[in-house]
Amino acid sequence: MKTLMLISNGFEEIEAITTIDILRRCGVKVDVASITGSREINGARDIKMVTDTLIEDVDVNGYDALLLPGGLPNAHNLRDDKRVIRIVKEYDKAGKVLAAICAAPCILERAGVIKNKNVTSYPGCIDESAVNYKKVKAVRDGNIVTGCGVGGAIDFALLIAKSLGKVEEAEKVRKGILYDWPLE
Amino acid sequence: MKTLMLISNGFEEIEAITTIDILRRCGVKVDVASITGSREINGARDIKMVTDTLIEDVDVNGYDALLLPGGLPNAHNLRDDKRVIRIVKEYDKAGKVLAAICAAPCILERAGVIKNKNVTSYPGCIDESAVNYKKVKAVRDGNIVTGCGVGGAIDFALLIAKSLGKVEEAEKVRKGILYDWPLE
Repeated sequence: MKTLMLISNGFEEIEAITTIDILRRCGVKVDVASITGSREINGARDIKMVTDTLIEDVDVNGYDALLLPGGLPNAHNLRDDKRVIRIVKEYDKAGKVLAAICAAPCILERAGVIKNKNVTSYPGCIDESAVNYKKVKAVRDGNIVTGCGVGGAIDFALLIAKSLGKVEEAEKVRKGILYDWPLE
Repeated sequence: MKTLMLISNGFEEIEAITTIDILRRCGVKVDVASITGSREINGARDIKMVTDTLIEDVDVNGYDALLLPGGLPNAHNLRDDKRVIRIVKEYDKAGKVLAAICAAPCILERAGVIKNKNVTSYPGCIDESAVNYKKVKAVRDGNIVTGCGVGGAIDFALLIAKSLGKVEEAEKVRKGILYDWPLE
């Protein structure tokens, strides 16, 4: 299993890093590719990350899933990038997993792949009347996996792993990170 | 309110980034300082971050709290660094907030500041019989705030914010990130 994350400046750090970290813990390969032309990108809360690679340096056909973190302007940068929209459409046609969190479902909306589907997002980021909007941390509908935002990032990442067949691994990671320990 | 995070290679990405991100959302200034001599550091799941500064370039007296993320070997690097242990002891004497998550409470243990206190950690990372060990996501005892690991990172960060007087802000952030939305 090999996944591609596309990302740019203004990405939401918890959403991006949680998705990468949890998927790698589940044994899923994640390549993080910047669309900005620079591997060094700056998050919405001013945390600097160095990505693995650039979009122009990867063979986008070589992946099983696309990962789209939120954060602004990152989600709008991705939505307004024709290369990204083309990849989303191609992956959708091929039945590959498309995962987007928080503001990033607007990218799936622009590509026309979530109409009438069970979808969540940060409130107000997509036309909620054009989908079967779910007020939940994370939801899957076929090849579409969406998450509500920072507060659902771990559940979103675990659901992506499960959607890629890593069901036992996701359960093991969930336990290993002590996600079920009580608050107090 | 101004806080200092000390960090090195092998840091746990979700724990470090969640703490920085949530605290900044709460209006707390966070300076992230590498102890490695290089601002570019590599996490336990191979995510590269560029820190704000280096430990040798900050005035450690200018902060209200110390933040210690987990991940190995990061937590052991910090524990075995005499500068870090000296800072922990000084902050403790001054009653400043000392926050550590996952494996990082071993740094507080080495500095001798958590004996008989209410503390959590990732299981096996400290001598649990020498503290009043709590199997919870996050716990505070006076100036000591500890978290259990990745699965408690958001609660740990919110508890640090509250310990720094940002009670209303923490509640607002908790709601804003949709932490209370249902799983499904």
